[in-house]
Amino acid sequence: MKMNFRSGAICGIVLAASVAAASAQSNVRATIEATNTKFGAALAAGKPADLAALYTTDAMAFPPGSDIVRGRDAIQKMWQGVIDSGVKSAELTTTEVDSQGTVAHEVGNYAMKDGAGKVLDRGKYVVIWKRDGAAWRIHRDIWNSSMPAAR
Amino acid sequence: MKMNFRSGAICGIVLAASVAAASAQSNVRATIEATNTKFGAALAAGKPADLAALYTTDAMAFPPGSDIVRGRDAIQKMWQGVIDSGVKSAELTTTEVDSQGTVAHEVGNYAMKDGAGKVLDRGKYVVIWKRDGAAWRIHRDIWNSSMPAAR
Repeated sequence: MKMNFRSGAICGIVLAASVAAASAQSNVRATIEATNTKFGAALAAGKPADLAALYTTDAMAFPPGSDIVRGRDAIQKMWQGVIDSGVKSAELTTTEVDSQGTVAHEVGNYAMKDGAGKVLDRGKYVVIWKRDGAAWRIHRDIWNSSMPAAR
Repeated sequence: MKMNFRSGAICGIVLAASVAAASAQSNVRATIEATNTKFGAALAAGKPADLAALYTTDAMAFPPGSDIVRGRDAIQKMWQGVIDSGVKSAELTTTEVDSQGTVAHEVGNYAMKDGAGKVLDRGKYVVIWKRDGAAWRIHRDIWNSSMPAAR
């Protein structure tokens, strides 16, 4: 009887853990998508410091055509450069989020547009997110264009 | 006394779990680096099917300048194209591995060379790995060049 009770309790715990894990995945995705909305708003507002604040303090960005960018100050300068180049909006479309504890990876598509809505670049990205209290922050950020390279 | 024993036992379990986790991280990194060595050997041998076998069956690759490549058959064709373009070797240098259970992410640098050892491209990559039994396979694979874009 004691064993049965224990087995039942363990089953209950395992089932509760599975339900909790699925719910956690869904919450993580919602939080990441909400953060991406903030990202789009900060870019549209031309506020690179607000963009940098969405990253971890020891984040790395991997922009095409240049070396690795490390830390929020450098990441802020990188986004300032993107804004200065004429990008007025970024559409981020999440296609996959998989979280394990305090780490998650996201796969998505992006489109960068100018003030007239013309697509300057479109491509795909992979972001490694880290949980920071109730927030999730961008920890590793890599992307590349899906448009044919200039010849 | 019972509480003390329990606390001690729980402490022991937590400590053992921490040591096991650190050891697991180190083992995962070693397995990933060994798999990257196989990757380099398969590329040098001009065997794109061997490269594709290092990926999960539902893997995605994100090559610069083109759309997402899905599944082993398409990934094999992608690497055939790279080999046909004159790439004879790839040096992969892992700079970070962080694993959580059956998922890990790797950050690294690459250099692609021709038969004479000339660097055709160098850049950085992020790979999401998935555990498959004793092996780890490439599940999401994105990279971009650190060389200035052609104008």
